[in-house]
Parts: sequence; structure tokens; C-alpha cells
Amino acid sequence: MQFDSLDDIRAFCRDLPSGNSRAVAEAAQRQQTLTKPPGSLGRLEELAVWLACWQGHEIPKLERVTTAVFAGNHGIAVRGVSAYPQAVTEQMVANFASGGAAINQIAALAGAELLVVPIELDRPTRDFTIAAAMDADEFLAAVDIGYRTGPPDSDLLAVGEMGIANTTTAATLCAALLGGGAARWAGRGTGVDDAGLERKRETIDAALSLHRAILGDALEVAATLGGRELAAVAGAILAARRHQIPVLLDGFVATAAILPLVRLEKGMLDHCGAGHVSAESGHRALLAELGLEPLLDLGMRLGEASGAAVAILLARAALACHAGMATFSQAGVSGADS
Amino acid sequence: MQFDSLDDIRAFCRDLPSGNSRAVAEAAQRQQTLTKPPGSLGRLEELAVWLACWQGHEIPKLERVTTAVFAGNHGIAVRGVSAYPQAVTEQMVANFASGGAAINQIAALAGAELLVVPIELDRPTRDFTIAAAMDADEFLAAVDIGYRTGPPDSDLLAVGEMGIANTTTAATLCAALLGGGAARWAGRGTGVDDAGLERKRETIDAALSLHRAILGDALEVAATLGGRELAAVAGAILAARRHQIPVLLDGFVATAAILPLVRLEKGMLDHCGAGHVSAESGHRALLAELGLEPLLDLGMRLGEASGAAVAILLARAALACHAGMATFSQAGVSGADS
Repeated sequence: MQFDSLDDIRAFCRDLPSGNSRAVAEAAQRQQTLTKPPGSLGRLEELAVWLACWQGHEIPKLERVTTAVFAGNHGIAVRGVSAYPQAVTEQMVANFASGGAAINQIAALAGAELLVVPIELDRPTRDFTIAAAMDADEFLAAVDIGYRTGPPDSDLLAVGEMGIANTTTAATLCAALLGGGAARWAGRGTGVDDAGLERKRETIDAALSLHRAILGDALEVAATLGGRELAAVAGAILAARRHQIPVLLDGFVATAAILPLVRLEKGMLDHCGAGHVSAESGHRALLAELGLEPLLDLGMRLGEASGAAVAILLARAALACHAGMATFSQAGVSGADS
Repeated sequence: MQFDSLDDIRAFCRDLPSGNSRAVAEAAQRQQTLTKPPGSLGRLEELAVWLACWQGHEIPKLERVTTAVFAGNHGIAVRGVSAYPQAVTEQMVANFASGGAAINQIAALAGAELLVVPIELDRPTRDFTIAAAMDADEFLAAVDIGYRTGPPDSDLLAVGEMGIANTTTAATLCAALLGGGAARWAGRGTGVDDAGLERKRETIDAALSLHRAILGDALEVAATLGGRELAAVAGAILAARRHQIPVLLDGFVATAAILPLVRLEKGMLDHCGAGHVSAESGHRALLAELGLEPLLDLGMRLGEASGAAVAILLARAALACHAGMATFSQAGVSGADS
């Protein structure tokens, strides 16, 4: 195992690998020479420089792009917090395998390899209104699965999840670590009705009350109130940092999954970009708390890395311009009047 | 010529071709059957249905995608309203031809054919603080060039422009047709300093004062205060409507170019989507006036159809899901609990 204890994760977060400042300076300088007014490609320029930062080259590449989707089941599903039955998690994993889901289409379009990792779907986490969802060992095992997913030579990782009831899990993590209670973080997920939304809120508040003793410890929260697929997302983020791979996060659940790590060390976000902001109500608030500005705002709320995978297309546009455009001198174009 | 007089354009706008409501119903129904919670792909679902509407098929296609960039020069460039000299218009057209501009890279990535149409660059429009920029015949000639650009069998058209000083032209059109004067519509364009911005405002207000007698006639405004590349954009929009081709608009100038048509007939926008919202300050206000919600908000302000071309990637993502996803029954996935 990469991390044998929660303390191992804490130690990793205290000494995070940093990006390459020379590559940042070179890439930013290159952007100034390309045939466009400085800054006029907006976030496409930022994306190119950010890819350069983590890949460590003035001109980054996107030859090997990976999309990882982790799937898990949740004890709290019995509380009626989702519009869909728990069996849908496994059914959707089968749909991913046979190529029928949205992420299959988007990943193929974006030229990204798709890795789908179901984690003990026949063993849901415990209902955290009654007990801890996972103990530390169960949490670490799921983190490890995420850590070992995805090739260390990826140029970019888009990460997402699938798990019936997991917007309730995500909202519980946010409420535990950021405050505001269920009212602030519970949304309609896949589309619950008013009664379902009320059940979500009750579930979250019950969990916060039961586990109030551990709310001050971010990793205890991640185990006690989290889920296996969320732990795996966190593991994948840690591995990406180790291997200097930039990451595009998907929606509310994927972002909530890394919140415990960010509470340990704010710099954890440096290699992470928000692929999009979801229509799930808590996501916009969570991104604002984290200071992440999403690349896309398309009203998507599907999960399964679909928003992050669409954002890969923006990274490709950014790189195409960064690598392919002529400079002012190459093209014989006059610069700005001085 | 497609339109021999301004009245010919008015007549076309009174009797606009409409989309295919049967294809809309079929495409919307198809979206309900795909393996995702209804609505969870957000604007990607809307995009797929909109493409279906104009192509007239439940499953539209994006085999032939066209990007058109019209270029023109402006008499008002002599007023010091741009950070770049007028020669840059022609230099950038050469850069488009040799493949060195941003739009070359993005169009190639998006699988779009790029058509660059310089229009009488050696004959700038007249300085509209002194005289009409174009007379009706000059305007109609430029509209005609736009109308004849682009194959009638395109599946999607992204349209943009290049022309030093043309954010001043666009702001003048907006002020003339929507009110608020220069203060509301003048922005920094390619990056003018405070003195340049003040010159832009003076230019716009001087033009509005000189031509106040014609401000009530949208097409007279388009000729008198417009530009050749803006007229060509309008022509391309008219041709796209005739041929039932959906259109993605680029930034402030391209959107302002169709404003006169929209003033004639609001339904002109039905086949037009806003590819993005530009960082040029007037664009967000203009889109709000038109009720257009941009697909992207990336702080881009380059023109040359670059934002619209990035949005082609979103159309491809939308179509990939619409055409390629399995249905609930095909995949054996359970629907929502009832």
C-alpha cells in the first residue's frame, strides 16, 4: 500500500511536489509572442501555462490523456436519498464497459483512455447515520485503489465517479468540513423530489450529529462520512501530484472527494482544475470555497467524469494554439502601437 | 445578387424559414431514453435538439462543419481607436492563409473547414464621423459576399471576423440600435489604453450625433455605421437560415453584426447560438439584450471566430452523446423510482 496509515497521507500532504516554475515562465513568455493581442485567448492561455507547469515543459503535450471513473455503493442509499435504486451503480458500470454511457462518447471524442474502476459494489459502505461509513483501513484500501489507477506517464487526468446516493455523501463531507449544515449542501442529485430532498437533509444532519466528535479531523471525516469511490478519487489526485500530472476534476462529488486533502494542505489544488461547475446546487458553493473557477458551466449534473472530459477538449484547444500558432515575427504581423 | 435592395432583405426577414418541429420532438424524446437522468447533460442536450431542429433530423450530423472569417478595414481606424495599425488586418489574413493564427489551430482541432474572406481591404469604409461608412450598394455587395460564402450543405457554421478598429464599429451599431451611448458599449478591444478608450467613445458619440436622422432604420444603420466584414457576417447568417444551417456566433463584433437583422425580426436568432461570451465588455450586455446564453465564458477576446470554433467542440460532444449513447432498455439500466 502507498499509504499505510492516515498519518502517511498527512505526511505526503506536508511535503507536496511542486510544479516547474521555469516551464511556467517559458510558456507564459511564449504566449506573449504568438499572433494575438496578449491575453486575448483568456483561459486557454492559462490552461496552456498550467499544463506546462505540471508537465515541466514550455510546450506540454496531450498524447496520453486518461479519464478515470471510480464507482462505489453507499449504505445511506437505504434512506431513500436517490431517485434511482442502488442496482443502477452496477448497471452503469456494465454500461461503461459496453460503451453506452455519456462518458464513453465524450472520452472517445476527447481522445482519452477511459478507466472504470468499480470498488466492492457488493459491499456498500455502512449507513453513516448509524455507524462510520468506513474504518481507516477500509478508507486506505480505497485510496490505494485510486492511487494505483492510471498510468504514471499520463499527460492529463480527468477524474470522476459513479455511485447511487453519493451526492448525499458529498454534501455530508462539505457540511462536515465547511459548515452550513444540510441546508447549504443538499441538492436534488439525479432528480429527487421534495420528499427525497427532505430525506437527504435529515440523513446529513443525523450524520453530523452522530459523528460530531470527529469533525475536526479531515481524514477521519473522509473515512467516516465518505465513500469508497470518493476515497479512490482522492488517491488518484495524490498519485497525480506525485507523478506531476495535471488533473481536471468533474462535478460536486469528485470535488467534495478532495476536500479533506485540501483541508490538510491548500496547495493540493495547484495541480487540479475544475473542469466544470455542475447544476447540483452545492458544487458552485464548493468551488467558491476552494477558489476554483470552473472552465465550463453547461448545466451538466451527470457525474461519471462527463464534465471533466468535455473540459479535456478545452485543454486540447489551449495546447493547439500554444504549440501551433505563429509568432509575430514568424508571421510578419505588426505588434501593438507603443 | 441575392438582395438587390435593403427592401429585399426586409422581405426575407418577414418570411423566415422555420426549423423542423417534428425533428425537435423526436430528438427531445430520444434524449429522455438515454442512460442518464433526464436533463443531466444540460446544455449538451439542448445543443443536440437545436442541431436536430435546423438539420431536420432526429439525429443530426456534423460531417461538414464550416468556419467563416470575414475581414474588412475601417475608415475610423485613423482616429486611433485600436492598439494595432490598420495593416494588421491584411497581415492577419496572410497569417490565416499560412496557418499560423489561433483559428487555424482551433478549426483543425474541431474538424472544421476554414474559409477566410478578405473584403476590399485596400478600400476601407469611410470614416463614419464624417460620412456614411457605406452606401446601400456597398453594404449590399458585402452582404452578398457573405451570403455566397460557405457551402449550402454545411451541417454547422461558425462565423467570425477580423478588422482593425471594428470593436468601435460594433459598439457604434449597438449604441445606435440599443441606446446607452458610447459609455455603455465601448470597451478596450485588442487592448487600447485609457486615451484610446476615450477616443473610441468620442468617435462613437460623434457618429451617433452626425447620423441621428437614420437611427430608426436598422438596415440604414448597418450600412452607415457598419463595416464590410460585419455586413458579410449578416449575409452569411441569412444564407444559413435559407439553407437551414445552425450557426454559432463568435464574439462582440459578430454578434453586433447581426443586431440589425434581429431588430427587423427577433426570430432571426432561432438558428443562431452564442458560441461564447467575450471579455470585450459590450458583449455580455449585447447577449443579454438578445436573450442569448453563451456556451462558453473563457475570457477570450480575439475574434477571428476563435470562440465560436471552440464551441464547435461542444456541439461535437453533444452529438456524440445524442447519437452514441445506449438507451435504458438497451443497456438494462433501471429508470428512476416512481
